[in-house]
Amino acid sequence: MTEDLKTRLCAAVDAAFDRQVAFLTELTSHPSTRGNEQSAQNFMATELKTRGYDIDRWQIDLTDIQHLPGFSPVLGPYEDAVNVVATHRSKTAKGRSLILNGHIDVVPAGPLDMWDSPPFEPHVKDGWLYGRGGGDMKAGLTSNLFALDALTACGLAPAADVHFQSVVEEECTGNGALACLARGYKADAAFIPEPFAEQLVSAQLGVLWFQVHLKGLPTHVAYAGTGANAIEAAFPLIKALHDMEHRWNAKRNRPPEYAHMDHALNLNIGKFQGGDWTSSVPAWAVFDVRMGLFPGQSLDAAKQEIEQVIRDAAQQNAFLRNSLPEIVYHGFHAEGYALSRDSSQTATNAVTKLETAHQTVTGTPLTREPITATTDARFFGLYADTPALVYGPRAEAIHGFNERVDLESLRRVTQTTALFIADWCGTEEA
Amino acid sequence: MTEDLKTRLCAAVDAAFDRQVAFLTELTSHPSTRGNEQSAQNFMATELKTRGYDIDRWQIDLTDIQHLPGFSPVLGPYEDAVNVVATHRSKTAKGRSLILNGHIDVVPAGPLDMWDSPPFEPHVKDGWLYGRGGGDMKAGLTSNLFALDALTACGLAPAADVHFQSVVEEECTGNGALACLARGYKADAAFIPEPFAEQLVSAQLGVLWFQVHLKGLPTHVAYAGTGANAIEAAFPLIKALHDMEHRWNAKRNRPPEYAHMDHALNLNIGKFQGGDWTSSVPAWAVFDVRMGLFPGQSLDAAKQEIEQVIRDAAQQNAFLRNSLPEIVYHGFHAEGYALSRDSSQTATNAVTKLETAHQTVTGTPLTREPITATTDARFFGLYADTPALVYGPRAEAIHGFNERVDLESLRRVTQTTALFIADWCGTEEA
Repeated sequence: MTEDLKTRLCAAVDAAFDRQVAFLTELTSHPSTRGNEQSAQNFMATELKTRGYDIDRWQIDLTDIQHLPGFSPVLGPYEDAVNVVATHRSKTAKGRSLILNGHIDVVPAGPLDMWDSPPFEPHVKDGWLYGRGGGDMKAGLTSNLFALDALTACGLAPAADVHFQSVVEEECTGNGALACLARGYKADAAFIPEPFAEQLVSAQLGVLWFQVHLKGLPTHVAYAGTGANAIEAAFPLIKALHDMEHRWNAKRNRPPEYAHMDHALNLNIGKFQGGDWTSSVPAWAVFDVRMGLFPGQSLDAAKQEIEQVIRDAAQQNAFLRNSLPEIVYHGFHAEGYALSRDSSQTATNAVTKLETAHQTVTGTPLTREPITATTDARFFGLYADTPALVYGPRAEAIHGFNERVDLESLRRVTQTTALFIADWCGTEEA
Repeated sequence: MTEDLKTRLCAAVDAAFDRQVAFLTELTSHPSTRGNEQSAQNFMATELKTRGYDIDRWQIDLTDIQHLPGFSPVLGPYEDAVNVVATHRSKTAKGRSLILNGHIDVVPAGPLDMWDSPPFEPHVKDGWLYGRGGGDMKAGLTSNLFALDALTACGLAPAADVHFQSVVEEECTGNGALACLARGYKADAAFIPEPFAEQLVSAQLGVLWFQVHLKGLPTHVAYAGTGANAIEAAFPLIKALHDMEHRWNAKRNRPPEYAHMDHALNLNIGKFQGGDWTSSVPAWAVFDVRMGLFPGQSLDAAKQEIEQVIRDAAQQNAFLRNSLPEIVYHGFHAEGYALSRDSSQTATNAVTKLETAHQTVTGTPLTREPITATTDARFFGLYADTPALVYGPRAEAIHGFNERVDLESLRRVTQTTALFIADWCGTEEA
């Protein structure tokens, strides 16, 4: 890859960057929370079609994926869960193929009055674009797309097939990425610009979601002593789960990638609901838990331990003993994944090429960082023997209020991505 | 009052009792939870009109009551909060006037799968009528009505004005009963057949409802350490409130009526909601509290202490210290009331006449019992100088699953009520 081409690709990204920010602004204005991704996917499909790619757009069918490793259980049907994949078909096919993956779904905005400006009316201020999903990870969808555009602007195309994936369900199951696998999309490497500050993600955690349902015998509060309070009965269960969390984080349990982190595995009580009436002792409560797992940690063993912890804690409570809590799995069944453990030649090559591109654009060496979340990378790495590089722009307050992405970081990531594509796939005339 | 009349009144109740149970079954089938009382009130109004009473039916207007003592704050408007009052106007007006009061609103059913049969499809089994609200207190509405019917069946009517009240809002504010007061309904005594097992309620507690709102800075759970969990931040506040509950129940704080009860004042966490997404550290939580107060305990002082307890507990938590919980009052501002402290001649007379009627019907002396809940009696006793007798049938699992009322108890209460009306008001020819 010539210095001249590098320069031209970076210049092409610069030349289109205002359009890229406008594109990101429009994309972020689509409130694509789970179940509401259609308008954002329409926008993506239209833009991809305009560029001449083959468009594959389909609704996820549980029967296609529920038997596959990596599948996560869901509550309710998959109506309107639509994936979009655009494919560049190389004329020469002399290079290495690539999947450019990103997710279109965003997490809920939370209470609107906590935002300085409306979450789905994105705006740019002091070099940051603000809005729910702007960082996680619509910026990454634009860097994938505008990196390809930069090649086009130089009269080039990747010299191998490239699948551009805009998937749903990353934030709760990963079943969108799994459905792409099930549909036959494979490549020599995958690239996912999740917003981790221009560092290469060397490892990611597993994640389990589960709900704990408590039911009891309600009664008028005048007789509170005779009816168990299902809301307060949950508190010692949560305490027991946190005790488990501390055990799992103990030094002896940490794999090398996380040896330096005192608390990589977070147990989060993300939702809690219970009771119907202020003067009735509540008969029911449900709380939703997210728990991290280390790469290599068995999901089945984790689930068994969680169930045992809940059972044991319930035995300490007269009410719960007679009405054992029910555990419902309703989201992430995600195993951990460590790119750093992939010693294949393909993985080594891919990382080397990303290092080179990053160094060229930023002038600094690429650092590697284990993250305490999951991404769709696991599907490529664990179930398709495909190294998955997670590398994207700097963002702040993802899942929080005033979520924002650093636009200069996005520009650099787009340039790095363009160089990486040109180097990994090689180029041919457009 | 002659023995013959007593016998005829009891026989009239017996003769109509199958119809009374059918009436109660139909009334209980109306799911008159807060906001949904209209169909039940329509049924009551139609039945009362058929019997020839003057019907007054009006929507509660906050501006009529919000300045009055005993008013409880509400969230949201009072659309479709309709009271029904039927009035018997005596031709002779030689006796004492009476208000027969009951509430039409019922508390939510809770999870339907916890009921052995649907809560709003009442049925009779082994002498009990099952259904939400059957006990609390639609049975009492029927005993008031069919007691009057018994007089009619004997060719008689009360020799004083009688106001039959079917009110809303008893279960959350009492503003339905307050609106009757504000509309000018007064009488020499009030009678409320709440389901307290054929005992006379000698005292009732005050009740305060409040919500505690917590807000925090959410974040991706991967960075849980940097975002405060609003759900779990609530737990120490609840602990502090329970500590306060124990202090309030201390022996030195108990009035004579409750001196023998170790735990008359119950603090109930009746509802809890928080968080939007399992993998986001929750930014908000709200919990609803019901707290009892002793008769004579100042509402304002209680509120001040509650606010102080919340503030102090919040100071112990780095997150809450910077984002103090907000307390919202949204229901009961109910003072305690003790009929036993009413030494007026009117109260003494009323109780004596109820004792006589009860003894006649049941063959046992009337017992008196302080209760650990509130009723609408407080409006008559505290704000209208009217002794309010709370005396109704035996019920079980009120506010719970499989709520039920003892039909033989209901029959006796209806007979006792008929005798009490005839004795208190005197009789005239119908």
